[in-house]
Amino acid sequence: MAFSERVARLKSSLIREILAAAQRPEVMSFAGGLPAEPMLPKVDWSDMPASMGQYGMSEGEPALREAIAVEANKLGVKCDASQVLIVCGSQQTLDLASKLFIDPGTEILVEAPTYLAALQSFQLFGADCITVPQEADGPELEALRQRLQQHKPAFAYLIPTFQNPSAVRYSEAKRDAVAALLDEFNVTLIEDEPYRELVFDAGSATPIVSRLQRTSWIYTGTVSKTLLPGLRVGFLIASPDLFPHLLRLKQAADLHTNRIGQWQALQWLGTDKYRAHLAELRDFYRVRRDAMQVALEEHFGELATWEIPQGGLFFWLTLKDKLDTRTLLQPAMAQNVAFMPGEPFFVEPDANPGHLRLNFSHVPPEKLGEGLRRLAAVVREAQGSREAQGSK
Amino acid sequence: MAFSERVARLKSSLIREILAAAQRPEVMSFAGGLPAEPMLPKVDWSDMPASMGQYGMSEGEPALREAIAVEANKLGVKCDASQVLIVCGSQQTLDLASKLFIDPGTEILVEAPTYLAALQSFQLFGADCITVPQEADGPELEALRQRLQQHKPAFAYLIPTFQNPSAVRYSEAKRDAVAALLDEFNVTLIEDEPYRELVFDAGSATPIVSRLQRTSWIYTGTVSKTLLPGLRVGFLIASPDLFPHLLRLKQAADLHTNRIGQWQALQWLGTDKYRAHLAELRDFYRVRRDAMQVALEEHFGELATWEIPQGGLFFWLTLKDKLDTRTLLQPAMAQNVAFMPGEPFFVEPDANPGHLRLNFSHVPPEKLGEGLRRLAAVVREAQGSREAQGSK
Repeated sequence: MAFSERVARLKSSLIREILAAAQRPEVMSFAGGLPAEPMLPKVDWSDMPASMGQYGMSEGEPALREAIAVEANKLGVKCDASQVLIVCGSQQTLDLASKLFIDPGTEILVEAPTYLAALQSFQLFGADCITVPQEADGPELEALRQRLQQHKPAFAYLIPTFQNPSAVRYSEAKRDAVAALLDEFNVTLIEDEPYRELVFDAGSATPIVSRLQRTSWIYTGTVSKTLLPGLRVGFLIASPDLFPHLLRLKQAADLHTNRIGQWQALQWLGTDKYRAHLAELRDFYRVRRDAMQVALEEHFGELATWEIPQGGLFFWLTLKDKLDTRTLLQPAMAQNVAFMPGEPFFVEPDANPGHLRLNFSHVPPEKLGEGLRRLAAVVREAQGSREAQGSK
Repeated sequence: MAFSERVARLKSSLIREILAAAQRPEVMSFAGGLPAEPMLPKVDWSDMPASMGQYGMSEGEPALREAIAVEANKLGVKCDASQVLIVCGSQQTLDLASKLFIDPGTEILVEAPTYLAALQSFQLFGADCITVPQEADGPELEALRQRLQQHKPAFAYLIPTFQNPSAVRYSEAKRDAVAALLDEFNVTLIEDEPYRELVFDAGSATPIVSRLQRTSWIYTGTVSKTLLPGLRVGFLIASPDLFPHLLRLKQAADLHTNRIGQWQALQWLGTDKYRAHLAELRDFYRVRRDAMQVALEEHFGELATWEIPQGGLFFWLTLKDKLDTRTLLQPAMAQNVAFMPGEPFFVEPDANPGHLRLNFSHVPPEKLGEGLRRLAAVVREAQGSREAQGSK
């Protein structure tokens, strides 16, 4: 069997395997990034026109593209509907961008850590990923400038607002600085913002693409975190030089996005009903975030450090006594606790041990304590046995 | 701007441009492959569980995979649900197969003519397409053997049942012979069957994959031609050696197919309601096919030859006096008539002039005569002006 060269780069997805294992009802899962079931809004289909059953345009439904452009302009992203492409969730934007930019060996720039399914897509197409370390308020600017001087990445892929996994929200100053650097070196920006609307604490930050003067850009969003992921409806907005290529790649990939989901998304975007739902969602997740913080302080205060996430769905813990957290998976699952090891979020996993990504939206608050108690015991056990080995 | 090498191979899609132009209500369009609007079934969403809004499995909904496996086994395709992957329509299967098999320069084998959106996908990834001429009952077997002796294609992509565009249904004998040849040379088969259920005339033909003894295979189908294309729900069934790779590629492409459409498809597949709908669909299209045949005899009898399609959605005309039918597009559109030129369905368009693909499902029977009269006049005009030029 002769497969393509890229299949050799097709990794088994650790997160897939963990999520599959975490399906058992007795498992307390801090692993996934699923919206909480009680927060899935009740949707009505009775008014959907029959015409939504027919083939549609590759660009997406005109009214939905228009609504997305309106919302984007409110955020400061100057665009019109002709720059909006409806996709089957943000993951498809990554696939289309990979196709547009990446040949084997193409250099691209990503944060360290970054979203592991983005890495999976870029590396499948053969990208050589250059990394910039993430700080609490965004990337290390000196490192970013140095990378841009030494390399000519096809694009920079950034998640500036409640990054998955680190929960970092770039400061205003770093947003400006990053935009200026990308403009200076004329590097295309792909700005991925699935979590923008899941904000719990004051403080706003307009997208970096809205600060660019010169370079090309793709801005990508989704309704998966705020409405229904099962619709598989996301969008990208692209600078006019990129749009026609992305459209043709979308057409070659799957003709067009399902119209049923597009119609449902249109019933919400920009409406009072949606704003009310988002407010409810933020309140719900804020309560869970706060409960998680309390439980973490109790069980992980001695073991790890972390920033309180101001949005998104995750805590990002750094162990004080670092070890490869992938080795914790099996003992944790034996205790019916699932979590995401931090290593796969790095281009060089083995060089970046000691982080855990913990979701706070899924486990009910009354079970948090028990789940984190068990997980902390697994960490202590592993550290203890390592020390015991070390002292032999 | 540094794009990937593959973007240079990203062609503008002729069919997209024609379909866009054919949107005007005054245009009589023989161009597309759209289901007839009156035949889109009324669907009910009121019983859909809220859980369909949540993220789902990359493989697809278990119950739908099971239902598809049951139907496939009835056709003779021995498989179980674990081999079924739900995709966003058949086009996505082509994208996944391209990713699995094609590097720049990889040889693959296709029919001449073949489905132009498949060519678009394969060529985007850099395939070198080897062709086998199509006869009225399937491929030229001697040519097929010769190609397999001289080349080592990564796969053969075939549409054996009411091929788009040629409407050919492979005979039983050719199905056996093709299966034996692919087994002999150990070449993977991708068998694409969107039109199998749209059959108007007696005669059955089980899938070629069901006749294979040894080689790997992908069988691909969709509900787009028989239920609702706007759902974007299709499927592939793969031999067990291929399935895990296709699953990971699906996950990297878009995580999973929309669950809303999957749920709706499940309400129909294998039910009496669906069987009744299919029967109605066949009757409706048979009437349109027959009306088209009468109108074609009147207007194209002297100009072209064709076989009467026993299924599918298209007539495939061969002009007696061949010319590049792409040159007919503009004059036809000036007469408010749209059609698909035949050249883009060939790997070497310029070497294959003189075919027209005419859809018979879209134009109402009472308008057929006028549409074909105008199109025939455009053909005659072009042939006449060519002769006038030739005699200068």
